[in-house]
Amino acid sequence: MNDLYELIERADEYFNRYENIPKDIVKQICKLTMGQGYIGLAQINPDCGDIESNSKKIVRYINYASSIGLDLIVFPELSLVGSPLGDTFEKFPFLIEENLKWLDGIAKKTKDITVLLGFLEPLRNDCIPSQYYSSIAVIKNGKIIDIIRKSNNSKKCNIFDYKYIASAKKGNTASENNDCVILLGDDCLNTNRIDSKNKCCIINPSIFPNFLEFDKIQMLSNISKKTSLPVIHVNRVGATDTVSFEGYSSMYDANGELVAQAKAFEEQLLVVNPEKSIGKIYSAEINESKKDKFSLEYEYDLDRVYKTIIQGIKDYFSKCGLKRAVLGLSGGLDSSVCAVLLADALGPQNVLGVSMPSNITTDTSKSDAEKLASNLGINFAVCPIKEIVETTSQALESLFSRIEKHWAFRCKESYTRDNIQARSRATYLWAISNEFSCCIPIATSDKSEAYMGYATINGDMSGGLAPIADITKTKLFALARWMNKNRQEKNVIPQSIIDKKPGAELAINPKTGKPLEAEEALMPYEFLDEVIWRVENKQESIKDMLNSKFHYEMYNKVSLAQKEEWLNKFFRRMSSSLYKWSIMPPSIRVEKYSINKSVYHQPIVSGKINYNKVSEDYINSVLAKI
Amino acid sequence: MNDLYELIERADEYFNRYENIPKDIVKQICKLTMGQGYIGLAQINPDCGDIESNSKKIVRYINYASSIGLDLIVFPELSLVGSPLGDTFEKFPFLIEENLKWLDGIAKKTKDITVLLGFLEPLRNDCIPSQYYSSIAVIKNGKIIDIIRKSNNSKKCNIFDYKYIASAKKGNTASENNDCVILLGDDCLNTNRIDSKNKCCIINPSIFPNFLEFDKIQMLSNISKKTSLPVIHVNRVGATDTVSFEGYSSMYDANGELVAQAKAFEEQLLVVNPEKSIGKIYSAEINESKKDKFSLEYEYDLDRVYKTIIQGIKDYFSKCGLKRAVLGLSGGLDSSVCAVLLADALGPQNVLGVSMPSNITTDTSKSDAEKLASNLGINFAVCPIKEIVETTSQALESLFSRIEKHWAFRCKESYTRDNIQARSRATYLWAISNEFSCCIPIATSDKSEAYMGYATINGDMSGGLAPIADITKTKLFALARWMNKNRQEKNVIPQSIIDKKPGAELAINPKTGKPLEAEEALMPYEFLDEVIWRVENKQESIKDMLNSKFHYEMYNKVSLAQKEEWLNKFFRRMSSSLYKWSIMPPSIRVEKYSINKSVYHQPIVSGKINYNKVSEDYINSVLAKI
Repeated sequence: MNDLYELIERADEYFNRYENIPKDIVKQICKLTMGQGYIGLAQINPDCGDIESNSKKIVRYINYASSIGLDLIVFPELSLVGSPLGDTFEKFPFLIEENLKWLDGIAKKTKDITVLLGFLEPLRNDCIPSQYYSSIAVIKNGKIIDIIRKSNNSKKCNIFDYKYIASAKKGNTASENNDCVILLGDDCLNTNRIDSKNKCCIINPSIFPNFLEFDKIQMLSNISKKTSLPVIHVNRVGATDTVSFEGYSSMYDANGELVAQAKAFEEQLLVVNPEKSIGKIYSAEINESKKDKFSLEYEYDLDRVYKTIIQGIKDYFSKCGLKRAVLGLSGGLDSSVCAVLLADALGPQNVLGVSMPSNITTDTSKSDAEKLASNLGINFAVCPIKEIVETTSQALESLFSRIEKHWAFRCKESYTRDNIQARSRATYLWAISNEFSCCIPIATSDKSEAYMGYATINGDMSGGLAPIADITKTKLFALARWMNKNRQEKNVIPQSIIDKKPGAELAINPKTGKPLEAEEALMPYEFLDEVIWRVENKQESIKDMLNSKFHYEMYNKVSLAQKEEWLNKFFRRMSSSLYKWSIMPPSIRVEKYSINKSVYHQPIVSGKINYNKVSEDYINSVLAKI
Repeated sequence: MNDLYELIERADEYFNRYENIPKDIVKQICKLTMGQGYIGLAQINPDCGDIESNSKKIVRYINYASSIGLDLIVFPELSLVGSPLGDTFEKFPFLIEENLKWLDGIAKKTKDITVLLGFLEPLRNDCIPSQYYSSIAVIKNGKIIDIIRKSNNSKKCNIFDYKYIASAKKGNTASENNDCVILLGDDCLNTNRIDSKNKCCIINPSIFPNFLEFDKIQMLSNISKKTSLPVIHVNRVGATDTVSFEGYSSMYDANGELVAQAKAFEEQLLVVNPEKSIGKIYSAEINESKKDKFSLEYEYDLDRVYKTIIQGIKDYFSKCGLKRAVLGLSGGLDSSVCAVLLADALGPQNVLGVSMPSNITTDTSKSDAEKLASNLGINFAVCPIKEIVETTSQALESLFSRIEKHWAFRCKESYTRDNIQARSRATYLWAISNEFSCCIPIATSDKSEAYMGYATINGDMSGGLAPIADITKTKLFALARWMNKNRQEKNVIPQSIIDKKPGAELAINPKTGKPLEAEEALMPYEFLDEVIWRVENKQESIKDMLNSKFHYEMYNKVSLAQKEEWLNKFFRRMSSSLYKWSIMPPSIRVEKYSINKSVYHQPIVSGKINYNKVSEDYINSVLAKI
C-alpha cells in the first residue's frame, strides 16, 4: 500500500497549492481505490461563522476526494459553521437558516461520493427559541438522505457551552447508514446500543479540543474492541480564539489497534479503508501523561506546547485578518520566548521587537534584546522611554500634591512610578499597531505572573494576544532551552537571557541597589509554580500544602513560618488578581487546567474567600460572638 | 396590622445600625407575633465565597427573627456561599466542605425558630467530581432535619452556569415540611406535582437576577391561583461583579393577590403571615414592559436603570475592598453621567474628577467639567496633557520613520495621534489609583460606542469598572435629563453638556475645522441605537433592516444607499470590535440583552460572518466556481 500513500502524498501537494492534480496521478490512484470502499477523513480547519468560506473549502475537499475515487468523505462536527460558537447563533438566529441554505447548495453539487457533513440543525418542534442540534447530514446523489443528531448525553467534552445545543433524546441519534454506525463526538461513549451485526465500521465525526477529561486514544481503541468494529475518528484542526484543536484523526481496526492517524495541527485528507484495514500513521499522538507529583521535568510535553502556541498565533492572526506583531523586547525571558514563537508563526519579517530602555534597564538587557532580534532576523528598533517617563512623573508629582490636600492615604510606594514605565512602553506599542496596518502588540505575561497579579494593567499585560499566559515560569525556562535545542537554527535565545534571574526591571531593590528580581518581590518560582500545580491538579487548601513537602524543599531549607508566609501571599495576591484575569487579552490555552478566561470564571468580588480550612472550634467561637 | 409593621420598622432601624433593639419594642412585637405562624423573609446580600461573613450575617438575621417571635425564617438560595459562583467551587472543592462545616455551626446555634437556609450540597453518590446541588437545609432545634434539592428541570433562569449544579432527578426535590411545600428557584414552575391538601403555603427561596426570560410576578401569582395556596418568594439583593439582584421578596395570597413585597435593592427582613394573609407592600415592582417598536421613550425604565447601576457600583466597590474612584471629566455626556452615579453610590468626597485638556479640548468642555464637579461636590483637579502628548508624539515620529524602512503599509491616519491623548489620560488615572489607596479609575464607555469599537484600548475603555457600558447613547441622554429632574439636587449636569453633540474631542474634523463629532465619524445615534435595538430584540439581518422603516426615518430623509452604508458600517465595525468586548472591564449589566462579556460570548475570530442573508442563486454561483 506504500504506492497508494506515495501517490496520494504527491496529489496532496498539488491540492494544497490549489493546483490541478496531474491526470496520471489521479488515474493511478483511482486504479487502486475506485469502488473499493475507501474513505477520506477531511481533517479541516473551519472558520468560525464564515459559512461561505467553509462551504468553499468543503466543496474543494469533496471534489478532491471524489476525483481520487473515494466512496465516502467524512467531515468533523460543525464543519459548516465552525466551532465553538459561543452565543453567536442565538443572537443571530438567521445564520442557522443561512447554514441550511449552504448545506443544500453543497448537497446539490455532490454527485459521485457520499458525504458526511456536520452542520447546525434547528430544533423545530420545540418552543425554545434558537436551540439547535449538532447534526451530521448524509449527502448522496445531490440529496440529503439522512440526518444524525448528537445526543450529548455524556457531556464529557465540557469545554463548550451547551446552553444552546439541544440533546437529541431519542430517534436518530445514531444512524446505521450505508453499513456504518455514525456517532457524533462523545456520543461514541454510548456503545451499548450499537448493533454491530452486518456493520462495517463506526464513524465518529468530532470536535475534540486539546484538553479532554478523558483519554481519547484509550476510548477509541476500547470502542473498537468492545464492538469488534473498526472505528474512524475525524477531528478538526486549528484554533478559535483560545481553544485549540490538534486533529489526530484516526482509524482503529476491529481489534483496537491503531491503523491510521493524520498529522497533528495540519489540514489533511487522510485516506483509509476499514474493510481492508488499510491506513497510514502520519503522527504519533503525544499523550500528556498524568503526573502525580510536581517536577521540573517538562521535556516530554514541550513539542505539544510549542505546536499549540504556534497554531494559536497563526490562526488568531489569519482569522482576524492580521499579519504583523510588535512587542517590547526587554532582554528578559518572557518577551524573548514570545519573539521566537511569533517569528516561527508569522515569519520574522512580520515581527518587530522594540527595545524601550529606561534608567533602570541594564546594558546586558539592552544587548541581549538586540542579539536575540538579530539571531531571529526580526525587525528591531530602540526607543528609550526616559523622557516620556520623566515628563509624566513630573506632571503627576504636581497633581498628586494637589490631590493629597483632599484625599488621605497616599501610598508613596515606588510602584506608581514603576508602572509609568510599563504603561509608556505599551502606549508606544499600541501607537505602532495603530500606525502600521494589520499589526497588533503582544502581551508577554506568563501564568506565574498572572496568578500573582505581577503584571501592569495597560502595561505588559496589554496587547492583542497573550501567547504564553498559560505557561508557568519554570516551564517557560524549559521551553526556551527546548527551542534553543530543537529549532532548525540553534541557540537563538542568548544563554545570558536563560541564565538571568527574572525581573521586570521596573524598580531598584533598595537592599541590593540592583533591579528588583521577581523572586525577591514574590517567592522562588519553583515554589510558586508548585503551588499553582497543587491548586490546579490537587485542589489543595493552604492547610493541605503546609502538610506536604514541596520539591523546592528537597534542596532548600524553608521554615514553616516562611512557607506559611509564601502560601498566604500566594492566595492574597491571587485573590486581588481576579480582576486582572478578567481583562487579560485572549491568551492561548495550553494546559488542561487554566485560568484562561475562556474556561475559568471566578467572580472578581470573591476576593475574601478563605483558602485555609477552619476548625469546628473556630466556627463555633465566631458564631458565638454574634 | 399597621401597629405591627410600625413596630418592626422601628426595630429594623436598630438592627440595621447593629444596635440592641430596646426590650419594650421586642416585647410589643412578640405579643403580636409569638406562636402565630409569622415568617421572616431574609432578603440578604451575601458575599460571593466569603462563607464566614455570610454565616455571621445569617446568624444575626436568625437571632433577630427569633427575638421578634417569628416561627420561621427563610433565606434565599445559596445564601451561605453567595452566587453566582462561576467555576470557583470546582477549582477549590474543599470550600464545599467548609460550607458544610459552617452550616453545621449555624444549625447548632439555632434553637427556637425553624430556618430554611440555602447551601451547596455535594453530590456524593456520583463519580462526577465537584458537582453539587443547590439545596435548602431545614434547621430545627439545633439540627438539620431535612434537605430539599433543586431539580433544575426548567432552567429558565439561564444566567448562571449550570455546569456544576447537578439536577436532582427524584427524591427530595420538593419538601412538604412543616405544612409548607418548599420549591427552589424556578422549580416552582413545576406545580403539577404539588399536593396542596393540608398545606399552608408554598415557599420559594430563589436567586432571580434582574433579567429573566419569564415574568416573575405573573408566574408567582399564577402558582398561587393554580394551587390555591399562598406563595412566599424570597430573593436576594446585591450584585456579584456584573449581575444584579433586585430583591422584591414577596407573598401572594391563595387567590394570587400580592399581599407583601420587600424593598428593592436593599437588605430587609420582611415579616409575613400566610395563614392570616398579613403582609406589607414596601415597593412597587417595575416591570420592563416589552416594547415592540424602538422609541426614544425611556422614561418608564430610568428609575430601575439608575438603581441597578448604583447597587452595582456600591457592591463592586465594597466587595472588592475599594472606596474611591477617579475619572477623567471631559465635559461630555458619558463622563458626566458616570460622575453623578459615582457620587451617589460612593459619596462625593470619594470621587475625583480630573480634567485633562489637550490642544483640541474646547473652553466650554473645560468649564462644563468644572461646573459639574462643583455642582456635585466631588474633588476636582486639572492636569493638561499637552506636554506628554507632544513628547510621546515626537518620540513616535522618529520611531515610525525608522520602522517604515522595514515595514510597508504605514497608515498615517490621525487616529494614532488621537489615541495618544486617550492613553496618556488613562496613564494619569491609573497612576492616581496606584498612588492613592483603595482607588480605581472608571471606564466611561457606553454601549453604542462598545458596538462601534469607538473607544480607545488603554484609553477611555480602560478602568476598574465600567458603570454605563450597557446603556446606549440615546438612553444616556434620557438618564442625564432624568437625574437632573429626579435627584434631590436638581440640574447638577449643566444643560450645555446635555445639549452638546457627543464627540471624543480627540481629532479635528478637516471639513468643519472643529472637533470631530461622533455622529460624523459613525452615524446618527438615533439610527445607531435602533440598529442595536433591532439586533438585540428582533435579531434582524441587514436585509431585514433595509426592508423596515426606522424611527430616524420618520423625521429625516435617508436614501437607501445611505441606509445600506450605515448598516454595513455597523456590522463591519461590530465585527472588529469583538476583541474590545473581550477586554472590557467588568461592566454593570443593566439591560436584558447585553454584550457584557459575563453573558455574551462571540469568538473574536468570527469577524468574517456575513450578516446579510444571501440568495440560493448566490450560493450556487459561488460553489460552481470551486
